[in-house]
Amino acid sequence: MYLGDEFPNFTANTTAGKIDFHDWIGQSWAILFSHPSDFTPVCTTELARVVKLMPEFKKRNVKVIGISCDSLTSHFLWCRDIRSYAGCTLDESFPYPIIEDEDRIIAKTLNMLDKDEMDSKGMPLSARAVFIIDPQKKYRLSILYPATTGRNFDEILRVIDSLQLTDKHRVATPVDWKMGDDCMVLPTVSDEDLKKSFPQVKVVQVPSGKQYLRKTPCPKM
Amino acid sequence: MYLGDEFPNFTANTTAGKIDFHDWIGQSWAILFSHPSDFTPVCTTELARVVKLMPEFKKRNVKVIGISCDSLTSHFLWCRDIRSYAGCTLDESFPYPIIEDEDRIIAKTLNMLDKDEMDSKGMPLSARAVFIIDPQKKYRLSILYPATTGRNFDEILRVIDSLQLTDKHRVATPVDWKMGDDCMVLPTVSDEDLKKSFPQVKVVQVPSGKQYLRKTPCPKM
Repeated sequence: MYLGDEFPNFTANTTAGKIDFHDWIGQSWAILFSHPSDFTPVCTTELARVVKLMPEFKKRNVKVIGISCDSLTSHFLWCRDIRSYAGCTLDESFPYPIIEDEDRIIAKTLNMLDKDEMDSKGMPLSARAVFIIDPQKKYRLSILYPATTGRNFDEILRVIDSLQLTDKHRVATPVDWKMGDDCMVLPTVSDEDLKKSFPQVKVVQVPSGKQYLRKTPCPKM
Repeated sequence: MYLGDEFPNFTANTTAGKIDFHDWIGQSWAILFSHPSDFTPVCTTELARVVKLMPEFKKRNVKVIGISCDSLTSHFLWCRDIRSYAGCTLDESFPYPIIEDEDRIIAKTLNMLDKDEMDSKGMPLSARAVFIIDPQKKYRLSILYPATTGRNFDEILRVIDSLQLTDKHRVATPVDWKMGDDCMVLPTVSDEDLKKSFPQVKVVQVPSGKQYLRKTPCPKM
């Protein structure tokens, strides 16, 4: 599966009922993120952070769904721990679904198993994968971290901002960019069009003499 | 290719001569990172940032190598622009090699092409991939970003710190962790061993009553 491909569709049992993944995404962006195992420490900190970030995801029209090789029964019990760790009251409903993938069918399809992490039956667990999928169901970005290394959700928000901004405007976001920082005008913007479309552009001079480093203030979303 | 597999070996022509990838890694950690195209804006900001971060990579025993579908001639000319953008003098040698992969053999093997980005001949370009490989040549972590979205090298340093720390100590790093922050004791550490090995451990109580959220101060590297 390459970036730019349609993301594979699947049906799955989740804590919010059975879903067809593409139907569930609908007109939103989506983050599918896996964790190695319920009732383990790093996973709890991650899923609690996602609970607290729900307003940020909603603001960006992003749906979030978890997945691991545990059963729905396990997910439901563990959600109580996650809510507690996140500081929520236990009568609030859990704000995003978690998929059960006990037979590893989805984990294998999406190549997110970790050979270094086995369950008590010697079956490989899922790693810490993140897939970002756009409303056209296109696979746009991924990360794959091992069980030992919790993810950074500020970075995940940052890349969503970049993907959404660059879908709307003819710019790309440079290294270490954050929303509001200067952007780079795309190479496909002609010199003729440049000053009209990006009146505040600044071209950085480099030894090759080529005029490709064209910085512009961050466009408005 | 799953996390935990041996990372594929290959020979390649680079700006520092022909290499056997595993021999080149030697006893170091390695980062292989691809970019879509030489003489393009975001790539220049990224490779310049890596130039400036070389002391941080060296401190962590990490070798860095770039790759794209451009020729060595193109890489050599472009390196002058990168050095200039990074604020280096032009008589300094470029501090890391860049692989030429004009026939896309390595890009295909490592699944890092981006179908949304084509060159002038209609051939797909490489995306912004990062692969982290340990001194045993094991594939440990990856990210895959599209051309529009420059990477975050603070995040890359953060995950290297996590991988190296958790290789040495029986801990994992929670969500959004940075070096020095509290860690989580691994589930494989028994209750008997816990107090002896982690005298400052604090167990977070959760509704399930399970004792798996065991926080400890960050061990020394």
